[in-house]
Amino acid sequence: MMDNKNLTGGDNLAAILVIFGGTGDLTHRKLMPALYNMLLDGLLPKHFRVVSIGRRDKTEDQYREDIKSSIEKYSRNKIDESKWAVLREMIKYYRFDFRDHDGYAGLKAYLDDLDAASKTKGNRIYYLAVAPEYFETIVQGIHLSGMTKSKEGWSRLVIEKPFGKDLATARHLNQKLLEVFDESNIYRIDHYLGKEMIQNIMVLRFCNLIFESIWNNKFIDNIQISLTEKLGVGTRGEYYEKSGAMRDMVQNHIMQILSLVAMEPPVNLNTDSIRTEKLKVIEAIEDITPEFLRDNVVFGQYGRGVIDGVPVVGYREEEKVPKDSNTETFVALKLHINNFRWAGTPFYIRTGKRLGIYSAEIVIQFKNLPNILYFKDSNIQEPNLLVIRIQPNVGVFFQFNTKDFSTHHDIVATKMDTSYAIPGQGNTPEAYERLIYDILRGDSTLFSRWDEVEAAWKVADKIISYRSQSKLNFPNYDAGSMGPIRSFELLAKDGRKWWNI
Amino acid sequence: MMDNKNLTGGDNLAAILVIFGGTGDLTHRKLMPALYNMLLDGLLPKHFRVVSIGRRDKTEDQYREDIKSSIEKYSRNKIDESKWAVLREMIKYYRFDFRDHDGYAGLKAYLDDLDAASKTKGNRIYYLAVAPEYFETIVQGIHLSGMTKSKEGWSRLVIEKPFGKDLATARHLNQKLLEVFDESNIYRIDHYLGKEMIQNIMVLRFCNLIFESIWNNKFIDNIQISLTEKLGVGTRGEYYEKSGAMRDMVQNHIMQILSLVAMEPPVNLNTDSIRTEKLKVIEAIEDITPEFLRDNVVFGQYGRGVIDGVPVVGYREEEKVPKDSNTETFVALKLHINNFRWAGTPFYIRTGKRLGIYSAEIVIQFKNLPNILYFKDSNIQEPNLLVIRIQPNVGVFFQFNTKDFSTHHDIVATKMDTSYAIPGQGNTPEAYERLIYDILRGDSTLFSRWDEVEAAWKVADKIISYRSQSKLNFPNYDAGSMGPIRSFELLAKDGRKWWNI
Repeated sequence: MMDNKNLTGGDNLAAILVIFGGTGDLTHRKLMPALYNMLLDGLLPKHFRVVSIGRRDKTEDQYREDIKSSIEKYSRNKIDESKWAVLREMIKYYRFDFRDHDGYAGLKAYLDDLDAASKTKGNRIYYLAVAPEYFETIVQGIHLSGMTKSKEGWSRLVIEKPFGKDLATARHLNQKLLEVFDESNIYRIDHYLGKEMIQNIMVLRFCNLIFESIWNNKFIDNIQISLTEKLGVGTRGEYYEKSGAMRDMVQNHIMQILSLVAMEPPVNLNTDSIRTEKLKVIEAIEDITPEFLRDNVVFGQYGRGVIDGVPVVGYREEEKVPKDSNTETFVALKLHINNFRWAGTPFYIRTGKRLGIYSAEIVIQFKNLPNILYFKDSNIQEPNLLVIRIQPNVGVFFQFNTKDFSTHHDIVATKMDTSYAIPGQGNTPEAYERLIYDILRGDSTLFSRWDEVEAAWKVADKIISYRSQSKLNFPNYDAGSMGPIRSFELLAKDGRKWWNI
Repeated sequence: MMDNKNLTGGDNLAAILVIFGGTGDLTHRKLMPALYNMLLDGLLPKHFRVVSIGRRDKTEDQYREDIKSSIEKYSRNKIDESKWAVLREMIKYYRFDFRDHDGYAGLKAYLDDLDAASKTKGNRIYYLAVAPEYFETIVQGIHLSGMTKSKEGWSRLVIEKPFGKDLATARHLNQKLLEVFDESNIYRIDHYLGKEMIQNIMVLRFCNLIFESIWNNKFIDNIQISLTEKLGVGTRGEYYEKSGAMRDMVQNHIMQILSLVAMEPPVNLNTDSIRTEKLKVIEAIEDITPEFLRDNVVFGQYGRGVIDGVPVVGYREEEKVPKDSNTETFVALKLHINNFRWAGTPFYIRTGKRLGIYSAEIVIQFKNLPNILYFKDSNIQEPNLLVIRIQPNVGVFFQFNTKDFSTHHDIVATKMDTSYAIPGQGNTPEAYERLIYDILRGDSTLFSRWDEVEAAWKVADKIISYRSQSKLNFPNYDAGSMGPIRSFELLAKDGRKWWNI
């Protein structure tokens, strides 16, 4: 029945993956389906165990059946019984309340035994798939029980966002983590970095002369990063109230995308070389002055509206959201990166919930040519656009001008598109598959280094505190629209517009 | 029955089109179908007549029926009886042997009468759709009969290739034409210039920052112009013996394409501004020295072979071709344009008959980036390519590098293509429609100015005389191949290859 031929890797990849939050949403929807897909792709080590920690009273068999249902529901691959049998045997359920300090000793003993029985070489991945308020508790528990002090093997910590709720709490958390783990063993997940098109940014930039040569302020008019959602906060109102769009999207995903788009070429492709260049981008963002906050920041919160023909409630009517909530569900920013490559070329950023389009894309708008030969009279010159489409379509879109063969005379913007629609996440490897595989291999390129996180918080903090100190006239956009009027004015006053490609 | 609503234009477009060679191939296959399509597109003037001159004894009705059959056969549009009725009435057949000097007076009287009856305002287009040996005779006849000395209206001369068979004969012919017509009234047809994608070269270059910015020797590794045919010489062996690939394709079409690809931006879009820049390109072609001829020129002549599964004879076995013919049916050249934009970037040119692919395309191969980040190890960097496809596919192809989503690791060349296959010439306006319309309007942008023709002959002459003085080892390529081995070596010795996109 068991089918082992899909397993990979030598002893260096052997490991136990310990999931805190083993009965939680993330484990069911993302982590377990990712492990199953990795198995099918031959990316799971031969000597590998998953220890899921949960408080609930379940037998291992019950837990495994729950997981099987989730894989059936969320995996991009259909379940194959012989393959599932392999993964099933690897999955353990360990009942334990991680708030209970005294329980960690038992966990340690369990893992040590399992390790000895499973040839996992003392290698451990501690994955914190729990609410952020428990991060410190769990890391302390791991520390005090001596779980990181294995005779052999490595210990890696995986931590989900949010990494702190502002600069001070992020610094505090980081200090607590560093007391237990080396920076090099801390994997701060930003699942956007696992998406294929995000990784493709560097390839597009540094493998194509035609892009590399003109990737600067001499040729690029502006760059737009739009991460727009149709979803509202759903049942996550309580979390979202403490977060808002700035913490949920800008401080992490957008700052990471921005730094990949704007970075200088790194010395080499080593993790630290890349992270160093990314950090420099965030450090070069212009000072967040009162004038900046007044002129370059637009907050929004959705009111009632219609999404895909269905009426939806406003944010303040959502579950667990106060009727006078001041939390932003939308933010638009105009940023300048003050270095030689980008001075004068603004970066426009926009993210929000309950917008009319579900999309994540980067638009590179090139400058227009002088209207000397063509476009002298009535014609309007459409700019060259390069669009990196992250989701739901994935690929590259390019717009350029050509003759209109149907009229003999006019010039029209022609579109080339390699993008293909991917339902859900479709057939590109799920971000989590890539990320878990990289953690196993010890490659932290696609994770955030502390100084990057810190630099992003320095920027985000000032913007967030500006919002929290202001009395904003919320709600200020209808669900199903593309955000507040002021977000359009932000570009219109520069003679520009948002592109929705 | 008559349907006049498709007719266009005021008096300034009124004209009589006089076709010398009215029963010939060009008239039947190209000119008349083009006039019919122009009628359908509303581009034919209200006051317009076509006088077809032929030696054959035909009634006007017979001639018109012949033309109708040809339009049915060659037009991209189906024949519509009411539309045909309009064109039919415009067509006159005038029987006359244009070698007979005494006949021109009668023609003049006929045209003057027709002009008075048809409100064509004395405007005349004399179209020489005849073998080149008659050009001088006909122009003399027009001159001596006083046909260009109309009280009112303009007289334009349209002349098909070949314009001379070398520099000396071209100069002689030109002098004869200038005795009768001003340079501004001489329209030297190069039907390639009527093709939409050829006209699109300037639009692509001067309406797109992304191309304009890197259109030079700093970014472009080499440029390839390939005009390859599957056809042999067919029944045109007698003509081809006197021509060869250099006269048939290089001196005219390829020189024109080369100059559009390589020209500096003109001051404006006026005819003379553009032609001046095109001329400068031809003038900047490196000197054709003995070393150049030895190293940078490859001649070929096809032997027997197989095209699309069908065995075909060699050139020397074709009708009316001598068994020891030394005429080239293939030529490949490596040219340098010695100006600041192009020094160091070679232009590779290739054209031939009975090759494995029917295609006309321009390949812009950009330089590779240094293999610093990616491509350090096993990967081979594919260059960025921009391909302007002229026929049979028409459009733009772009190749760039991107991540291979299926493997997680590799980088692959991705292709974007706006090209669409056009059977025959399909739905883009036929080159001749565009050219005839421009002659009516008096726009000579898409025709060759004498100094361009002269400069192209200066280059071509030296290459042709090198061939005619050499005893070449013909045949040296099989029909259905892509030409002689040496044409591949021409690029291979530079570390390059021909692209067949």
